[in-house]
Parts: sequence; structure tokens; C-alpha cells
Amino acid sequence: MKNVAIFGAGRIGRIHAGNLAALPGVNLKYVCDPMAAAASELAQQHGAQVSTIDAVFADPSVDVVAIASSTDTHSDLITRAAKAGKHIFCEKPVDLSVPRAEACAAAVKAAGVACMIGFQRRFDPTFNEARMRMDKGEIGNPEMLVITSRDPGAPPPEYIKVSGGIFRDMLIHDFDVFRWILCADGDEAAWLSATGSVLTDPAIAATGDMDSTAVTIRTKKGRLCQINTTRRAAYGYDQRFEVLGSTGMLQCGNHTPTEVLTWNATGIHGDKPEHFFLQRYAAAYRLEITHFFECLQSGAAFRTSIADGVAAQKLADAATESCKSGQPVTL
Amino acid sequence: MKNVAIFGAGRIGRIHAGNLAALPGVNLKYVCDPMAAAASELAQQHGAQVSTIDAVFADPSVDVVAIASSTDTHSDLITRAAKAGKHIFCEKPVDLSVPRAEACAAAVKAAGVACMIGFQRRFDPTFNEARMRMDKGEIGNPEMLVITSRDPGAPPPEYIKVSGGIFRDMLIHDFDVFRWILCADGDEAAWLSATGSVLTDPAIAATGDMDSTAVTIRTKKGRLCQINTTRRAAYGYDQRFEVLGSTGMLQCGNHTPTEVLTWNATGIHGDKPEHFFLQRYAAAYRLEITHFFECLQSGAAFRTSIADGVAAQKLADAATESCKSGQPVTL
Amino acid sequence: MKNVAIFGAGRIGRIHAGNLAALPGVNLKYVCDPMAAAASELAQQHGAQVSTIDAVFADPSVDVVAIASSTDTHSDLITRAAKAGKHIFCEKPVDLSVPRAEACAAAVKAAGVACMIGFQRRFDPTFNEARMRMDKGEIGNPEMLVITSRDPGAPPPEYIKVSGGIFRDMLIHDFDVFRWILCADGDEAAWLSATGSVLTDPAIAATGDMDSTAVTIRTKKGRLCQINTTRRAAYGYDQRFEVLGSTGMLQCGNHTPTEVLTWNATGIHGDKPEHFFLQRYAAAYRLEITHFFECLQSGAAFRTSIADGVAAQKLADAATESCKSGQPVTL
Amino acid sequence: MKNVAIFGAGRIGRIHAGNLAALPGVNLKYVCDPMAAAASELAQQHGAQVSTIDAVFADPSVDVVAIASSTDTHSDLITRAAKAGKHIFCEKPVDLSVPRAEACAAAVKAAGVACMIGFQRRFDPTFNEARMRMDKGEIGNPEMLVITSRDPGAPPPEYIKVSGGIFRDMLIHDFDVFRWILCADGDEAAWLSATGSVLTDPAIAATGDMDSTAVTIRTKKGRLCQINTTRRAAYGYDQRFEVLGSTGMLQCGNHTPTEVLTWNATGIHGDKPEHFFLQRYAAAYRLEITHFFECLQSGAAFRTSIADGVAAQKLADAATESCKSGQPVTL
Repeated sequence: MKNVAIFGAGRIGRIHAGNLAALPGVNLKYVCDPMAAAASELAQQHGAQVSTIDAVFADPSVDVVAIASSTDTHSDLITRAAKAGKHIFCEKPVDLSVPRAEACAAAVKAAGVACMIGFQRRFDPTFNEARMRMDKGEIGNPEMLVITSRDPGAPPPEYIKVSGGIFRDMLIHDFDVFRWILCADGDEAAWLSATGSVLTDPAIAATGDMDSTAVTIRTKKGRLCQINTTRRAAYGYDQRFEVLGSTGMLQCGNHTPTEVLTWNATGIHGDKPEHFFLQRYAAAYRLEITHFFECLQSGAAFRTSIADGVAAQKLADAATESCKSGQPVTL
Repeated sequence: MKNVAIFGAGRIGRIHAGNLAALPGVNLKYVCDPMAAAASELAQQHGAQVSTIDAVFADPSVDVVAIASSTDTHSDLITRAAKAGKHIFCEKPVDLSVPRAEACAAAVKAAGVACMIGFQRRFDPTFNEARMRMDKGEIGNPEMLVITSRDPGAPPPEYIKVSGGIFRDMLIHDFDVFRWILCADGDEAAWLSATGSVLTDPAIAATGDMDSTAVTIRTKKGRLCQINTTRRAAYGYDQRFEVLGSTGMLQCGNHTPTEVLTWNATGIHGDKPEHFFLQRYAAAYRLEITHFFECLQSGAAFRTSIADGVAAQKLADAATESCKSGQPVTL
Repeated sequence: MKNVAIFGAGRIGRIHAGNLAALPGVNLKYVCDPMAAAASELAQQHGAQVSTIDAVFADPSVDVVAIASSTDTHSDLITRAAKAGKHIFCEKPVDLSVPRAEACAAAVKAAGVACMIGFQRRFDPTFNEARMRMDKGEIGNPEMLVITSRDPGAPPPEYIKVSGGIFRDMLIHDFDVFRWILCADGDEAAWLSATGSVLTDPAIAATGDMDSTAVTIRTKKGRLCQINTTRRAAYGYDQRFEVLGSTGMLQCGNHTPTEVLTWNATGIHGDKPEHFFLQRYAAAYRLEITHFFECLQSGAAFRTSIADGVAAQKLADAATESCKSGQPVTL
Repeated sequence: MKNVAIFGAGRIGRIHAGNLAALPGVNLKYVCDPMAAAASELAQQHGAQVSTIDAVFADPSVDVVAIASSTDTHSDLITRAAKAGKHIFCEKPVDLSVPRAEACAAAVKAAGVACMIGFQRRFDPTFNEARMRMDKGEIGNPEMLVITSRDPGAPPPEYIKVSGGIFRDMLIHDFDVFRWILCADGDEAAWLSATGSVLTDPAIAATGDMDSTAVTIRTKKGRLCQINTTRRAAYGYDQRFEVLGSTGMLQCGNHTPTEVLTWNATGIHGDKPEHFFLQRYAAAYRLEITHFFECLQSGAAFRTSIADGVAAQKLADAATESCKSGQPVTL
């Protein structure tokens, strides 16, 4: 039985807590959150106790910490957890600063603890099936990847201001998908060009960020990746990718709430995609935390290591720079 | 907190036990099964105790019994549970004999206990969405229903021999769907014609049963329903229906494991439907048991009453008779 | 160069005339229609001459007559054409009366002329592809066929009165599809049950006909076919079938005007099917007339012979009788 | 009746000749081609005469010339046709050199003749439906366009060498689609970045060209367009685009030969897209030539003017330059 403490009782913390509580062999022991009411409610729901960060790190019975607190706390918590000898599951990103993220990776390595970063898209049943078909050779050598990644609506300007910008906040997932899908054989990004606009809301322009972006990456082997994103798609949350290989293409579609089609005088009408990430990636969140404990048990490497977290962050930095300068970045 | 005892630790019992154990406000207290090892394993998995039928009925702390044992035990357990004042969730069917099913319904009524029959298709997210769109008037007055209901493979001949025949064993679900979708306004079947063949396996003919059937029902209001079934569809488990109304049609498709399409030199290839009923109806099983306890709490009527169980059984009898005689049955 | 005379300058006559005029090796020489203006306009459009039935039969330069006049004229024109030694392309049906249809077949045989009946669905690219895949063995032995055949709206009551009823008027096509798909190995219908209702318009009831039907056919080999039809589907013209075989299923969908999907806040929206038969079967009409002349040239058998026309008519009679009596018909 | 001469009796010339011959009010009078046999065969097929370029320009009975000869002859033929006072339908591109294309536009303007460039994609029923829905305001203000444009296989290296490179040869269509879809309100490209690789065949590298490209365009209004192309998609000819607007998205799919799905033990299998451009754009070629004569008659502006041809060429030049330099181009 592994004892786990979770940091963060917000939206994503509650998801992870529910999944942790349902896992055999796992005991959700502590919940920590600066908002006492949130911590208390979540702890009660799963028969856990409210605690504090300090107490958790001091408690030798705690095997694992799950970090689901705000982004600016991640690097500090990872570093402290590593020093305290706790294994770590941390929501993406490691940190908005690449040097700090690299320092975390070093601390983890020095402490010899396990650390997995929660890039949940790699656990989405559809996306992961594509990866597995590639591994079986179903499309030959990968050549091109087109990622469509659109949110149903923008967060408030206050959030955007501290988000690190759209490339670090939203495309971090897409950069990880790019590496997962096109670089599995050790290939890496060699050239990146990014551009963007504010098209949906002038309030976003006022924060200095953008809401619509187009990124192109060329790898060392000449593979091509295009990513298109918006913070506001009127039809909802759109998460798809297509990977073209030498012998075929894999096309990953959205998930929908139901499989009902309505046929009437105006056409044939199907469901919009699942509402947002909590719905689309419900299975992925469950599968990633299961994977974490399976790897802890078996000693196998995590599918999404802290090195993956650092690498995605570097691409986000490159995109931010390219978009500002209007020039491509060579990596 | 409601204390629950489950009868049956087989395939479907394990599904219900897992869902019961995860429900807030529900305590899975006892597991009963003639196979001691199965009962013990299931009880241990969910922190319940192994018990016996007699002990359960004698224990005043038990509020609810969930009947997931073999079909031939259902009517006896329902009757005893009613007498013991326990609320009842019972897997379909009530009983293969209509008179015994009616006796169960009478016993339940006399005892004043709640009794829900587990027709899980009414809780399938896709099928139920269609019902809700009909309730909102999206297709006007329903006129025709076409049900495709196909299994991936036949059970062993020993099972088929005691199954009551394909109409009572397999189509019982489809008869319930027919009533749910076409008869919500009090309409009922008026005329039924059934035919069938053995096309997939001569061993099925040896049992006196069939593997392929075609049923037509006309209601009092003149609505039409066609059901086609097979025990062996080479491509898997196929569960669809289409309901045509005066202003449109609702088409309910299969669920698939993933949303990946492979494009290659031989075409564009998608997933088969979910493997079988445990996969396709995983959400439905969870939702129906949730509904049961919500209704217990609120006093609302169950979506699938014991009267629905009896009514579906009568249609199965009529189909069996029609198929044997080659003549339609007037109801 | 084959000289052709067309009888009938109405809706379907104009389709055939256009296709005839575009065929290499074919000269559309004459157009005949009791409506002088219609005949004249159509003749002028294709550089043909207006003529009369008598003159056509008397003209030795005419090789082929294409009969696209009203149904009640078909049998007389076939018989006269056969006597005059002209090859015959005749729109379905041969005749609403089976004995008269059989007399036509006898006359054609006696005269040794070629005669093809225009069941255009057998030339639809989608439907015919399914037939070809069956011929290649892609689904093994056929077991079940489900046909959905729905019109966008009913013709006027005056037409319905003289139409021979919905089974002879509308389902004649579906009976032909049944034989084409399930009986290619010499199997034939053994048992047929039909029922129906008036659900869309009381004016149809006043004519003694129905607007909604459900037919089941069992063949000598035990194969099953279900047909569902309506004269009024609110969403348009719906022409689909699914054939289940021992190793797979072929599913034939509708054709649509475009491949545009609109994604918006209310869902994902696609085109309705092609408007009606002239649009859906535009390619089929072109392909069937091409096939007619290719067979004339090569001596190959027509895909849709006059015997097929007679056989479909017998099934329409059986369905009409079954629907009236409420009893199945053994064939 | 308009008399037309066609230059070019190759693959695309035969398509245009067939469509011209079928148009009411149009007389395909002359066919010219340096390959005498090809000219003769095509002329004979449509009842036209073989002629020469000089004779055509000297013949006052010729109203229109249709230029379907090799790319390197286009600008000379346009200029001569303009001087001769003939109206012009010319296959894309105007010329591989922008200055020569501009000279053609000037010659056309000076002569006061009509000149349409054959960008057939604007006449594809699916693509044009998207444009019409945008015109009706169905997706609000356009924001992003993603174009997937892939050939089933590369032409021979000898062709590639003189093709002007992939941006001028293949993407010229996509640049036109970009302008048609995103710039209908007078917006224009402001910034373009292109990259590419040789991934499918080293023989292409030897020609100095590429086979896989990724282009991004940002417009003056900040709209974003991404284009991905390959000369060799293993699954065939893939022609799609998606345009995101402020209130929705239009997604244009491929056309398929049939609507048959095969369901079997390995999944659900549909058709590949139509084989290549002659199949996919068969309707488009017919509709564009119809449009040409309708505009000649009515005096309406062509959907695809010579100015559109010049503008697309400029984008192809910019992409070629950007791809070589690795730097974006400001327009």
C-alpha cells in the first residue's frame, strides 16, 4: 500500500484525488491546499486527512506526492519532495522557466526519486492507440504531423497575464505530442517558426498575449509538424491530430458524449466534441495515474518523464521567441 | 447509508458489485454465491463479507438486495426479498415464465418494496439521449423503429438449451427498447410476427433454438418496429437503433474503443464496435445502479419497473409462439 | 449506330433521352408522347424528330425502343415492340398485373428480342459495389438484409389511387434489391409477411393505400430480409441497405450533395441525402442505359431481365395480399 | 453559338474538350496540338477539325480559345489570343514567371478580352459550398484555414525539373484557395514562411525540389493559414480544408467513389478518396467551363480572373524564396 499526499484541491486536484482513491494498493492519506475549505471537503470525500506541505514532507509514511497546485509552486514542491525522498507525480508544466525546470530535473536525479510529469494526452485512448499503431509499423516512417488544438473559450485576462503566454500555457501539450509522435526514434526539433494573432478578444491583446497561433517545426530528419491553436473555438474543445507516414496516415478524432445523429429537414446533426479537457481526458487522467503506480511497482520508465517536461518547455520558449521576433529559431 | 447484499459473484455480479462499492451513501455489506471462492474473492475486493441468502433475508440491517444470480433463481429471490421487506434491484429477466413473473410483480406490490429490473440499455448514454430528444419533441410523433441487435458469438449449446430460446434470452432487451421508444405515450404492441433461422451453427439447431431472427411489431396506433438479430456477427457486437418520427429521425450508433482512423492503400479503416456488452454498456451499468438509489431516495418511479419486465416477457413469449407457428400473434 | 425511339417525354423520359443522346454509337431518332409540346421540346433538345407509336413500330430503321411512358402503357408497348422486332428498354414495372407481365415476358421470348427492365438501383455505384464485393466473397455467405427505403414525400392521392398500392409502386424496387442481393445463387423467397399503416396523411388512407410498411421475407435457404419504407421522411430521400454475411457486413449509405461539415455551437452538421431519385440515381440511370447497349452489342445477359421484373411483381402481389389479410404468404 | 478552339489534346485538354462539346450554345470547332495523332483523335471524337495556332488566331469565326497546352506555352498563347481579340480560358498557371504573368494580364486588359484562369478547385461542389456558407455568414469572421493537399504519387523527375518547383507546381492551387477563402473581403497575405523536405524519394532531391512542405501565411488582418502538402500520400489523393470562423468551422472532406462500408473482424472499412484530380474534380471541370460561358454571356466577372492567377504566382514565388532562405517573407 502506497501512501499518497496530494497538493492542490482545485479542479485538477479533485480529478487526481478521485482517481487516486479508486486505485487498488494506493491510500490517499493527505490533502493540502491553502484554501482550507477546499482541502477539507476533498479530504472528507475520500476519507483522507487535511495536512500541510511541511508535515507531509516530514512524514516518513508518505511514499508519493501528487502535485496539482498552481504552476508557480511546481518547481519548489518538486525540489522539496525530491530532497524528502518522495516519489513525485506532477501536473504539467514543470516550470515556466527552462532553467528552473532543469534544476528540478537535476534535483530529482540527485535524489534518485521517481518523477512523472502529467502530460495526459499521451494516455488518451485515441492518441495512444495511434502511437501503438505506429510502433507496430502500420504507417511506416512518420513524415508529417498536423495538430489541431483548440479551446472552447479563453481563461480570464488575469490568468492569461501570469500564464507565461499561449505557447507555454496551451501549446506545451502540443509540443509534447509532437515529440511523442514524431521523435520516438531519437529525432528532435531542428527549426521552429511560430506566428500568431489576437482575433477573438481585444482583452487578450491587452495582456500582451495572443489567442490564435500557427507553429511549424522541422526535425533533424526533415519531418514536418504544423500546429494550429485558438483559445476560442465556437463549437467547443477540438483536439485532433493526423500523422502521415510513408505507408499510411493515422487520423485521431475528437470524442463525443453520444453516438446519436439527428436527421431532419436541415441536415444530419451530430454531437459536438466533449465539452472540455476534464471530459475529453477523463479516461486519460485515470490511465496516467495508474501508469504512474505500475511503473513505481515495476521500475519501468515513465511514459512522460521530467526530461520530457523540460524538452516541451524549451520548444515553448522557442515558439515564444520566434513569434515575437518574426524569425524562425534554430534548435 | 444503505446496506446492500449482492446475490451472484459471476461476470455480471462483479460489475454490479464494483459499481455499488463506488456509490456514495451505499455500503456493499454482503456477497452471496454458491461458488464459495467467487463470493470470497469478490467480498474481499470490496471490503464486504461473505454471507448466505437466508442470513441476508434475516438481517434487518440489509436495506437492498441486488440479484445478479442465474436467471432461474430470480423469481424465488424476488419473492423472498419482498417478503423480507428488502428493496430489490434485479438483473433482467424477471423470469422466463410470464405467470411466475407476474407472481413476482404481485409479491412486490403486496410487500410495498421497491423493485427495479436491470434493462441497462435504457441507461446507455447514446440510447438515453435519443429518448430525451424524443421527449423534447425533436422528431415529432414516432412512427417506425428499426433495431439491429447482434452478438459477436453464440454462447455454448448447453447454455442455449436452458436459455428459454433466443427471443427470451437475447431479444428481451430489444422488446424492452421497443416499448421504451415507441410506447412512451401508452401505446402498446397489437400485432407481432416473428421468424428465424439457423444460419451460423448447426449445433444451435440441435438445441431447438435459432441464431438469426426477424421480428415485426405493429402497435395499436399503427407504429411499426422491426428487429433483426443474430447470435454471431463476424465483426462483433452491434447495437444500434433508428427511430423515425414525423419531423425527423434519431440514429443511435455503436460505441468504439477509439476514434482513430487508419488511411492506407486499401481504404480508410475505423474501429469495430466495443467488444461485447460489458464494454459497450459499462457506463449504462454504472448509471442504472445510480438511478436505482436516486429513486429509492427521492421516491421517484424507476425507469425500468417490474411491470416493464413482465411486459417484455410477454412479447418474448409472443415472438416464440409466432416463430414456431409461422403465424402472427395478436396481442 | 443504333437508332432509338423513346416513348414518354416526362420526367423520367427526359433523363433517359439525355443519356441516350450522349451515348456513342446511339442515335436518338424519335420522341413520342401524347403531350405534343413535351415531345417537341425534348426532340428539339436532342436533335431528334417527333413521331408516333405506330410510325415507330413501322419504321425498319428503328432498332430499339425505350419505354418511359406511364405504367399502364408498358405491357402493351412491350408486346407490340416485341412483335415489331424491336429491342426493348422498359422502365420498371413491367405491369401491375403479374399475368400481364408474364404475357409480356412470353411475347419477348417468342419474338427473340432483347428486353431489359430499368431497375436502376442495381446500377447505383454504391449498391453495385456491394454486389461486387459479395461476388468476390468479401462477406462470405449472405444471411440477412435490412433495406431502408424512404421517400421525401408522397405523390398526390390521385396518383396513389392508380399506383397499384405502395408495395407495387414503391417497394417493387426493394423486392428487386432483395432478389439481387440475397438470391444470386438461385435462392428465392419462401415466406413473406407484410404489414403497414397510414401514419403521415389521412388522405392516403382515403385512397385505400398505406404510407408506412414493414416487410419480412425468409428465403428457401433461411436467409432473412427486412424492408422498412415510408412515403414521407422529413429529412428527405433515404436509400440504404445492409447485408450481413458469415464473415462480415456491407453497409450502403446515402449519397450527399457535398462533403461539407459545419461545426458550430449546436453540433456538427452534414448534408441531407441527395434530394430525390433523379439526383441520387443520376449516375445509375446513365450506367444502366450504357449497360443495355453494351449487352446488345456483346450478347451478354442484362443485369435486370424481364424475368426479374415478373419476379419482383410477384413479391409485390404477395406483400399486398399479406398486408390485407394480416397473414404471411408462402411462396 | 460560340466557336471555340482548344490548344492541347493531352490529359487536361481532353477533359475540357469533352465538357466544351457537351455545352449548349458552344461549338468546339478546332483542336490544335503538336502531336498530330492526339489532335486528330480528339477532333474526331467531338466532330471538330484539326487546325493550327496561326490559323485559329487568323480565323474571325473563332470567339474563344481554350488553352490546355503545356505550361511554358501559356503566356505566349494568352498574349497572342488577346491581340487577336479572342476570349481566353486558360489552364493554371498563367506563367511560372511573375513578370511574364503580369505582362499577360496587361495584354488582356489592353485588348479588352475576357480571360479566366482555370483554378478548378473553386468550382468543386464541396469547396464552393463552403465558400457560399461563408458568404451567408454561417461561420462569422474567418480566422484560420488549414489546407491538406496531397498527391498520390510524384510525377517523373524530368517533369519535376521543369515544373518550377513544388510551390509553383502543386501549391499554386492552395495559394489560390487561401486567397479565395481568407481574403474575400480584400485582405491579403502579409507574411509567409515556408519549409520543406525530401522524404519520399531521393530522386526528387536530385532535381533540387522537395516533396513535403509546410507553409504558413499571416494576412494583414492577422488571419492564419497553414498548408501541408506531400507529393506521395500512400492512401491516395487527399484534398481537404477546414476554415475556422468566429462562430463556427467549415470542414471540407474528400469525395469517395462509393458510400459502402465493409464491417469485418478487422474493423470498419471505407473507400479511399477519389483516385486523382481527374476523378475528384470531374464536376469542377464541368462547372468551371460552364461558368466561363455564363460570364461571357452575362458580362459578370469570372470567379478566377487573370489577376488571381498573378496573385497566386506571387505567393508561390514567396514560398520558394522562404523555403530556400529559411527566413519568412514579408509581402
